[in-house]
Amino acid sequence: MKIRAWKENIFDIVSKDDGDNRASRVFDLLIMGLIVLSVVTIVLESFDDLNTRYRALFSAFESFTVAIFTVEYALRIWTADLLYPNEKHPRLKYVFSFLAIIDLMAILPFYLPFLSADFRFLRMVRLLRLFRLFRVFKMGRYLEALQTVMQVIRASASRLVIAVVLCFFVMLFSAIIMYTVENPVQPEQFPNVIASLWWAICTLTTVGYGDVYPITAVGRFFAALISLVGIGIIAIPTGIIAAGFTTAIDQRNDTRAADDPKPYCPYCGHRIQD
Amino acid sequence: MKIRAWKENIFDIVSKDDGDNRASRVFDLLIMGLIVLSVVTIVLESFDDLNTRYRALFSAFESFTVAIFTVEYALRIWTADLLYPNEKHPRLKYVFSFLAIIDLMAILPFYLPFLSADFRFLRMVRLLRLFRLFRVFKMGRYLEALQTVMQVIRASASRLVIAVVLCFFVMLFSAIIMYTVENPVQPEQFPNVIASLWWAICTLTTVGYGDVYPITAVGRFFAALISLVGIGIIAIPTGIIAAGFTTAIDQRNDTRAADDPKPYCPYCGHRIQD
Amino acid sequence: MKIRAWKENIFDIVSKDDGDNRASRVFDLLIMGLIVLSVVTIVLESFDDLNTRYRALFSAFESFTVAIFTVEYALRIWTADLLYPNEKHPRLKYVFSFLAIIDLMAILPFYLPFLSADFRFLRMVRLLRLFRLFRVFKMGRYLEALQTVMQVIRASASRLVIAVVLCFFVMLFSAIIMYTVENPVQPEQFPNVIASLWWAICTLTTVGYGDVYPITAVGRFFAALISLVGIGIIAIPTGIIAAGFTTAIDQRNDTRAADDPKPYCPYCGHRIQD
Amino acid sequence: MKIRAWKENIFDIVSKDDGDNRASRVFDLLIMGLIVLSVVTIVLESFDDLNTRYRALFSAFESFTVAIFTVEYALRIWTADLLYPNEKHPRLKYVFSFLAIIDLMAILPFYLPFLSADFRFLRMVRLLRLFRLFRVFKMGRYLEALQTVMQVIRASASRLVIAVVLCFFVMLFSAIIMYTVENPVQPEQFPNVIASLWWAICTLTTVGYGDVYPITAVGRFFAALISLVGIGIIAIPTGIIAAGFTTAIDQRNDTRAADDPKPYCPYCGHRIQD
Repeated sequence: MKIRAWKENIFDIVSKDDGDNRASRVFDLLIMGLIVLSVVTIVLESFDDLNTRYRALFSAFESFTVAIFTVEYALRIWTADLLYPNEKHPRLKYVFSFLAIIDLMAILPFYLPFLSADFRFLRMVRLLRLFRLFRVFKMGRYLEALQTVMQVIRASASRLVIAVVLCFFVMLFSAIIMYTVENPVQPEQFPNVIASLWWAICTLTTVGYGDVYPITAVGRFFAALISLVGIGIIAIPTGIIAAGFTTAIDQRNDTRAADDPKPYCPYCGHRIQD
Repeated sequence: MKIRAWKENIFDIVSKDDGDNRASRVFDLLIMGLIVLSVVTIVLESFDDLNTRYRALFSAFESFTVAIFTVEYALRIWTADLLYPNEKHPRLKYVFSFLAIIDLMAILPFYLPFLSADFRFLRMVRLLRLFRLFRVFKMGRYLEALQTVMQVIRASASRLVIAVVLCFFVMLFSAIIMYTVENPVQPEQFPNVIASLWWAICTLTTVGYGDVYPITAVGRFFAALISLVGIGIIAIPTGIIAAGFTTAIDQRNDTRAADDPKPYCPYCGHRIQD
Repeated sequence: MKIRAWKENIFDIVSKDDGDNRASRVFDLLIMGLIVLSVVTIVLESFDDLNTRYRALFSAFESFTVAIFTVEYALRIWTADLLYPNEKHPRLKYVFSFLAIIDLMAILPFYLPFLSADFRFLRMVRLLRLFRLFRVFKMGRYLEALQTVMQVIRASASRLVIAVVLCFFVMLFSAIIMYTVENPVQPEQFPNVIASLWWAICTLTTVGYGDVYPITAVGRFFAALISLVGIGIIAIPTGIIAAGFTTAIDQRNDTRAADDPKPYCPYCGHRIQD
Repeated sequence: MKIRAWKENIFDIVSKDDGDNRASRVFDLLIMGLIVLSVVTIVLESFDDLNTRYRALFSAFESFTVAIFTVEYALRIWTADLLYPNEKHPRLKYVFSFLAIIDLMAILPFYLPFLSADFRFLRMVRLLRLFRLFRVFKMGRYLEALQTVMQVIRASASRLVIAVVLCFFVMLFSAIIMYTVENPVQPEQFPNVIASLWWAICTLTTVGYGDVYPITAVGRFFAALISLVGIGIIAIPTGIIAAGFTTAIDQRNDTRAADDPKPYCPYCGHRIQD
């Protein structure tokens, strides 16, 4: 009986997203703080002088973070049967949920010697913890906004794929044309199609570093054409996403009108004054 | 009695926004002119030769400007009880209004010796006066436009925050990937993650100065991917704001239709021909 | 009687936009050709070798063009009473119409010795002829599209002004911040606020030439912030114009539905199948 | 009889797009693979060392690809009477269809000695095969998205033409202004109007390589103005396309509502709860 009460307490603290429980909120803030600090240490470690001076400190903090996250992960699995009371295998279900996989990926490699030997790999793994911050959005008014953004991206996905494919075709064409035209004149800048593709992407996304650019008249003519096409390449996904948001907001307004018991027009969702 | 009439006159001149009172309009234009001149002197002072030659003039004009703005501020506080006739503490309410705080911030530091010693700080303070120009938009047809722009930004705020957070995550990922890949090859350009973040922001916003760019094949591959993501990073806020404006204009049209006494369709705002 | 018939003939050829009259179409094509050739010669003259070799030819062609345009202008004024049959002063009305003023500006300076002495000024004047090409859009399906584009820009004008003012404020702030931060370190790149403004505009419009960029840590921090704001600066006008087009297309569809005699829904403009 | 059955079998494999026939799907995948490999070899050949080492291999693969594509093309023509059973000249109709012309262009030049002598021309021809990949989109959920994207571009075409013409005018003006202002100071960077046009396009599309930029005060002033106009130049097509997508999605939703037998509002497509 006592264990059951303990478990429910821990479940309330570790897993629940409601803001009522004070201990739960403190726990959430501590975990968030650890995540942010963990990412900050990645940044700090990249400074050579800091790294040589405080290496022991960084290492200790990392071990501490992994330990805390491991305990948290274990507690979440232990209390998974309270999260999914009607499931047959609640713990299995939790282990394979999206957020739990990220949690595992953020700690597992530190226990595997053959993986933790490569400090570059570990750096990427630690960066994955950033995704855990998405839990923040589970609360308050940001949830609806996050849902809208995700819904729009999902609803526009197939159109965006077409736009990306069109974009890729234009890039490949641009790269091969530019390689053909510029390679004989500046072979160091356009040595092959892949290098030319680098130019094409820099130009079509309008980044334009200026490390590679055409110098022949024909090359500049095609580059000008490609730059103009670049505007369209940007305009199409922007237009798709803008239309997605317009539709999503309209639908949300319509749904709200439908839920409201007051006399609304059944056709357009506007209130009718009798 | 005489003071009361005087006060009302001054209130009409200093605080009212209607264009009927001639003196009020002349006063407004003078203040606007002073603000613009004050900002112009900031620009002129930054030219070394002008600054050495006309330093006394600039200083005298600055003192004059601060004096006028101080008098104006005092008069506004004095007449605040006419602006908020039903308030208990009209002057207190005015002092803590947004525009009054800006007015105070634009003059106060010049009276505080420990603040006015730092001429860089004073320069920023003087620039704050630009915000006072927003009073211009209180008149005429721009008011509605300003309200629409502000309303759209406010209504889209939570979605824009999500977009900014997504953007920040992408930037941090890009910076750490690029640091890992490029640091061994060009340690001067990518000495640490913060320097790499500078590259990431330049690329994702498609500014692309060209002072830092990847030179390795792997680095260019990731940079190309990140540039393409940059299009999306720009497309999402643009889409959010575009959808916001579409909804705002639709709502305004609907409201107008509702206010109009002519036989409009109560549902969609279109005129009905009987 | 004969003169009257002549006049009507000339009016049909010179001024009417309908495609029925064959002579009118031939005349239009000739004038268009002359305009395009006139602009092409501006481009060709800018090549030093071409200019020295064919200077006489260019000069002769320019005189010929001005002569033709002068005759055309005179004929249009002469036949203006047929264009505005119900006006009291049809010629005066025509002379002060927008297109006629451009026509006059494109030829007048060549008759004024004190103006035609400055060949740079004449080059700009000749470029004005490009505007005459807008007559092309008076025909066919492009007229509606041009009207839509113009209508959207006009309807969005006050909102766009707000966006431009916001943009200008952000630029001035950015310039002064950057001047304060970077001037002590690289005085050649940021010598004064105006030079700093050049950097701010290049950055906020995401052009990013890379001739001027911050090198201090504080400068890069602010530049990063400003670049991100730059995305918003681009997003707001784009959003305004996108919303304008959405509204314009909706209204057009609504109007069409209203004009149609078939049984349409009076609320939403969709056809109703009984 | 046997030939007829054979022909139908081949037709099913070569031409039909349904996913029921297993042989047809395998054939499609093989052709797709060949197209992708063919494009990959273009990229690989551009690397000097790979080209010298494996030239024979590349050449053999190219001959093999052309042979397969020729057989495929012949089979498609042979079975065209099954594709268009009600046509008088089904093979002629097929030969002049858009996709068949691309198919022919991708193989014909290799049989014409005078064309196949120029390896640059052949490279472009081989790149045309990429277009054949568009057949992929004939299946599944991408078809609708592709149709929407194409429909929006087509519906917005006349407005986009206006935007492009406006853009071209702005570019020509910018180029001539900048040539006039900068040519006397930096004649190598702005030698003529065409070179200046290169700068104008780089700036207005916000690519900004930084190989050419103004250095005079007047030049920078105009460049700043032109950069700001560049935002508008990008905003207009983006707005047009965004509005196009919004309208297209709305229409699609309306059509769906009309097709649905459930009790929907016949006016706005929303469900009516009785």
